[in-house]
Amino acid sequence: MTRTINFNAGPAALPLPALERARAELLDFAGSGMSVMEHSHRGKEYEAVHAEAIGLMRELYAIPAEYDVLFMQGGASQQFAMVPMNLVPAGKSADYVVTGAWGQKAVAEAKLATAMLGASVRVACDVGAGEGKAKKYVRVPTAGEIKADPAAAYLHMTSNETIDGVEFHAFPDAGAVPLVCDMSSDFMWRAVDVSRFSLIYAGAQKNLGPSGVVVVIAKKSLVAAGRKDIPTIFQYRTAAENNSLYNTPPTFAIYLMRNVLAWAKELGGMPAMEKRNLEKASTLYEAIDGSGGFFRCPVDFASRSVMNVVFRLSSEALEEKFAAEAKKAHMVGIKGHRSVGGIRISLYNAVGIEWVKTLTHFMKDFAKANG
Amino acid sequence: MTRTINFNAGPAALPLPALERARAELLDFAGSGMSVMEHSHRGKEYEAVHAEAIGLMRELYAIPAEYDVLFMQGGASQQFAMVPMNLVPAGKSADYVVTGAWGQKAVAEAKLATAMLGASVRVACDVGAGEGKAKKYVRVPTAGEIKADPAAAYLHMTSNETIDGVEFHAFPDAGAVPLVCDMSSDFMWRAVDVSRFSLIYAGAQKNLGPSGVVVVIAKKSLVAAGRKDIPTIFQYRTAAENNSLYNTPPTFAIYLMRNVLAWAKELGGMPAMEKRNLEKASTLYEAIDGSGGFFRCPVDFASRSVMNVVFRLSSEALEEKFAAEAKKAHMVGIKGHRSVGGIRISLYNAVGIEWVKTLTHFMKDFAKANG
Repeated sequence: MTRTINFNAGPAALPLPALERARAELLDFAGSGMSVMEHSHRGKEYEAVHAEAIGLMRELYAIPAEYDVLFMQGGASQQFAMVPMNLVPAGKSADYVVTGAWGQKAVAEAKLATAMLGASVRVACDVGAGEGKAKKYVRVPTAGEIKADPAAAYLHMTSNETIDGVEFHAFPDAGAVPLVCDMSSDFMWRAVDVSRFSLIYAGAQKNLGPSGVVVVIAKKSLVAAGRKDIPTIFQYRTAAENNSLYNTPPTFAIYLMRNVLAWAKELGGMPAMEKRNLEKASTLYEAIDGSGGFFRCPVDFASRSVMNVVFRLSSEALEEKFAAEAKKAHMVGIKGHRSVGGIRISLYNAVGIEWVKTLTHFMKDFAKANG
Repeated sequence: MTRTINFNAGPAALPLPALERARAELLDFAGSGMSVMEHSHRGKEYEAVHAEAIGLMRELYAIPAEYDVLFMQGGASQQFAMVPMNLVPAGKSADYVVTGAWGQKAVAEAKLATAMLGASVRVACDVGAGEGKAKKYVRVPTAGEIKADPAAAYLHMTSNETIDGVEFHAFPDAGAVPLVCDMSSDFMWRAVDVSRFSLIYAGAQKNLGPSGVVVVIAKKSLVAAGRKDIPTIFQYRTAAENNSLYNTPPTFAIYLMRNVLAWAKELGGMPAMEKRNLEKASTLYEAIDGSGGFFRCPVDFASRSVMNVVFRLSSEALEEKFAAEAKKAHMVGIKGHRSVGGIRISLYNAVGIEWVKTLTHFMKDFAKANG
């Protein structure tokens, strides 16, 4: 079997060893004569997997003890509602920094969630050019651009905008206001100082595993202070008090995340991931910038994403041709998001440098043939 | 490899052919050179799986065209909140029939969900004996016991109580009030007349697949009339308008559900499932009733569950011994829920009659040795 070169934006490529491990024990987990999917979430076999996944994440990401690590469902899209439902008290407001399409969605959902609960949200900064859904995002704000309300319940940001290819490489200083971050598409690409944030959430289907599980890392004090006048299932304290086993968790997705985290540890943890990811991204950006304008990245240099590299060719027709020929060369997932077009190459942790080199050679040949 | 005899209450045994199929193509789905988990949820390979799962469910369960079939996340526990959030308008109330522990949880969550939205809930019938969490449930209500409010937004019931082993074998007549049913633990065990219900929901981890996906079957008119003043992600219309692809679905869980549904179809669909399940349940109940009182089922004869068979021995010590010796004989998942104790045998679709016969032989031997 030849493995296809997979640049999908998520669900995305997974490390081959993590998948091979899953295949080897799919019918017989840990000598139990059952698949891990068939085990009770209250049994010792699954509980060991659950604990190992949490333990590996705490270890690799150096998560301080005063933070809960929660595994939930519904993806980041559900967190867009759950964050304000939990964290904005009645009569209070939360601030949002918008640097792309996902930040826009987070604000829209927070408006509905807070209106239902007698609270509100405010856009503290939106760096988009243009209006509404047609807004273009090419950069993160400078420190001075964020007009944060010191009384805000929190300041929300999106560390990496998957669709726009815009990433924060330094985090804003929110002062005493709790900083909340949607880190879905650049979670664990390298070490971060978790203590800079009060809450981080991330869908697994980029750097961590299959879709169906979302990780929430939250300060215990924030969880404890959350609203209690919302359904139990949406309260972070419910997951925290029950070690993410209040109701049946997505056991197989968490199992596979365990396999991915074990793979990351074996490769050297966050320092190895960072080195690997920086090499991939610089190789690709160099190919774009060195193409004499044949390929153009619209994102400001300092805000370019290490995870999702977006670029354009001179016409949509040429972009179509590029994607079609790449596919013939066994490269998939390279079309930009349907809302913005263009080309997007996602370089999550599981993508190897050899795939990127195959791509950049292909880009050079394509530019020569079509330049 | 010897397969363990798995009577887990959920996550539970899955059909071996469905697992073998998953293993065979885990690294290379449909000749794509990628795992199904690595495919985009917007790509044609996954979309075919998604459509096939919905199509098989519609076909096998004879779901009328005026119903949406939705795949969501968060399990039945999240539906406890989402049903009232969507379906009880401000100033209105919904009715609940409580026949066990899950019905109690559904009411408690609906109270929080409606209070947040200026609506309310009411218990139309609770057949439990005793008080609060210590209530015992051994039967479903008679038709006359349900004092339904004709102005209720809906009447909610739990068709099978997994913990108590209590199941409806005929459904109440709700008149013009929409009937909403938590069918998590007996969904698709046999054919039902879906048109009796306005909304059915069911976690997959019993008869359908792994945990991480919940099926909602809802009348399109009910979905369209749902509240719009709640977060987008919690509105049924969002899933309906986007074919359950508004955000990233749990693709692998849906893929595995597809495998399970294909297996059920191959075996003969719902008539074959019904025959198979009735044979298993009658074999086990006969072993209990024919034990001269050594094993005792506390549930009223007419309300006994075909899916979750609960019974007691003369002491907790003897129940412990029974479970321990069964485990030595490679049978797992037979302890009752921690809240009620005793023994519980779950007989979901994937459990074979040969497993039940092994169990009943074991029960006879155990009774002889310990009687």
